[in-house]
Amino acid sequence: MSKVPVMEVFGPTIQGEGMVIGQKTMFVRTAGCDYSCSWCDSSFTWDGTGIDLIKQMDAEEIWAELVSHGGEGFSFVTISGGNPALLKNLSYLINLLKEKKIKIGLETQGSKWQDWFLNIDELTISPKPPSSGMETDFNALDMILGKMKATDNRNQTSLKVVVFNDEDYNYAKMVHLRYPEIPFFLQVGNEDNKTTDDQMLINELLKKYEWLINKVMADDELKDVKVLPQLHTYIWGNKRGV
Amino acid sequence: MSKVPVMEVFGPTIQGEGMVIGQKTMFVRTAGCDYSCSWCDSSFTWDGTGIDLIKQMDAEEIWAELVSHGGEGFSFVTISGGNPALLKNLSYLINLLKEKKIKIGLETQGSKWQDWFLNIDELTISPKPPSSGMETDFNALDMILGKMKATDNRNQTSLKVVVFNDEDYNYAKMVHLRYPEIPFFLQVGNEDNKTTDDQMLINELLKKYEWLINKVMADDELKDVKVLPQLHTYIWGNKRGV
Ligand code: SF4
Ligand code: SF4
Repeated sequence: MSKVPVMEVFGPTIQGEGMVIGQKTMFVRTAGCDYSCSWCDSSFTWDGTGIDLIKQMDAEEIWAELVSHGGEGFSFVTISGGNPALLKNLSYLINLLKEKKIKIGLETQGSKWQDWFLNIDELTISPKPPSSGMETDFNALDMILGKMKATDNRNQTSLKVVVFNDEDYNYAKMVHLRYPEIPFFLQVGNEDNKTTDDQMLINELLKKYEWLINKVMADDELKDVKVLPQLHTYIWGNKRGV
Repeated sequence: MSKVPVMEVFGPTIQGEGMVIGQKTMFVRTAGCDYSCSWCDSSFTWDGTGIDLIKQMDAEEIWAELVSHGGEGFSFVTISGGNPALLKNLSYLINLLKEKKIKIGLETQGSKWQDWFLNIDELTISPKPPSSGMETDFNALDMILGKMKATDNRNQTSLKVVVFNDEDYNYAKMVHLRYPEIPFFLQVGNEDNKTTDDQMLINELLKKYEWLINKVMADDELKDVKVLPQLHTYIWGNKRGV
């Protein structure tokens, strides 16, 4: 059985976050997560509320769905979740995308390893800060980042930490200083991922973004880092599937 | 004489544009440009209005000024203009920054070559679209991108085109299709770089950003591209030196 549980396929749209921010991409969102972050903005992938959306699909079916949405207009696919790293069987999709010369981006929190990580072009490891309520398994993280480093370097690995408060900020710093050679992204947390008042949301997010920038600029221990917002929220607010 | 005309040194702040968007960086802005783009947002570097700001500085003086602003808190310096590629003598500053293990980003429109391009870690070539009123010298551009490609690839080169209207968009596409293997960034133009009404500015820029995203998403000829805003404008409006 080479199927995986898929929650939604959409695009083309832009990647709003992290190392490939702005990239034109299709999205495949898988179901299921081993975490339950307090502020998860895709909790429908694991909390039962999205259960009717889940389809068990094999690689060819996912490809057909990608093409039905994206036609001839894409060369990049982002796999997100939930935690796609739970799914050993994603290897079939990843191999198929490779055959089709599609570049692949993937984000995971860094709790699980899969051998197919080595075939991801742009791998974002996003360990979760204290405000999530989750505990980081640093043994797993060390192992994953060690294995990625040992590869021939054609693929890119980065770390991204979402920051809601000072405690998260200190956690982010600790992560960066533990893995100083890995490209590091700080991202503003979205405190209110339910509101539909886009103007208020943007103003709040910009205020938080400025707060985070100011902290990093004043901090001599964070030098070679990038500070980014969630760009798509500026355009589409909290809407899903865009 | 190893001096160069410097307009301003500031930071640390974030890079708001292009391939290193979000990067914590210091800025050195040089004076002088061989272009005079209609919408230039740093025309004070070449139109005479900023002439009192220009200081002739050598590499050690610039370094001292960087340290006086940034202290121990930076490892990245962005050189901008004007067109810094007019200045052969920038080689001294670039060599000094290299010695200090500082990463260097630089943006130029691609009208002139300098041998020190090969020592820039993140080089953005930003040819100007029709709305600028300038004419692109494609022979110069071919030569520059050819030389950068022939290097050992430790440094990164990207192309960035600012888009104000449909004609600019077609120009951007033509540039991307001419150099398909070079990472390509489309950026929204800021129509109103004088206003101090930040709220209105942000709303206008977001509308333009969405317009550009929608065009690219619907365009099968633009696949592996990134579409970005000028992030710093969202935070600081049209203020200079932040
Ligand atoms: S790891 Fe990601 S998908 Fe899983 S609960 Fe946390 S935020 Fe949500
Ligand atoms: S090339 Fe850049 S600095 Fe020179 S006029 Fe054009 S926008 Fe201004």
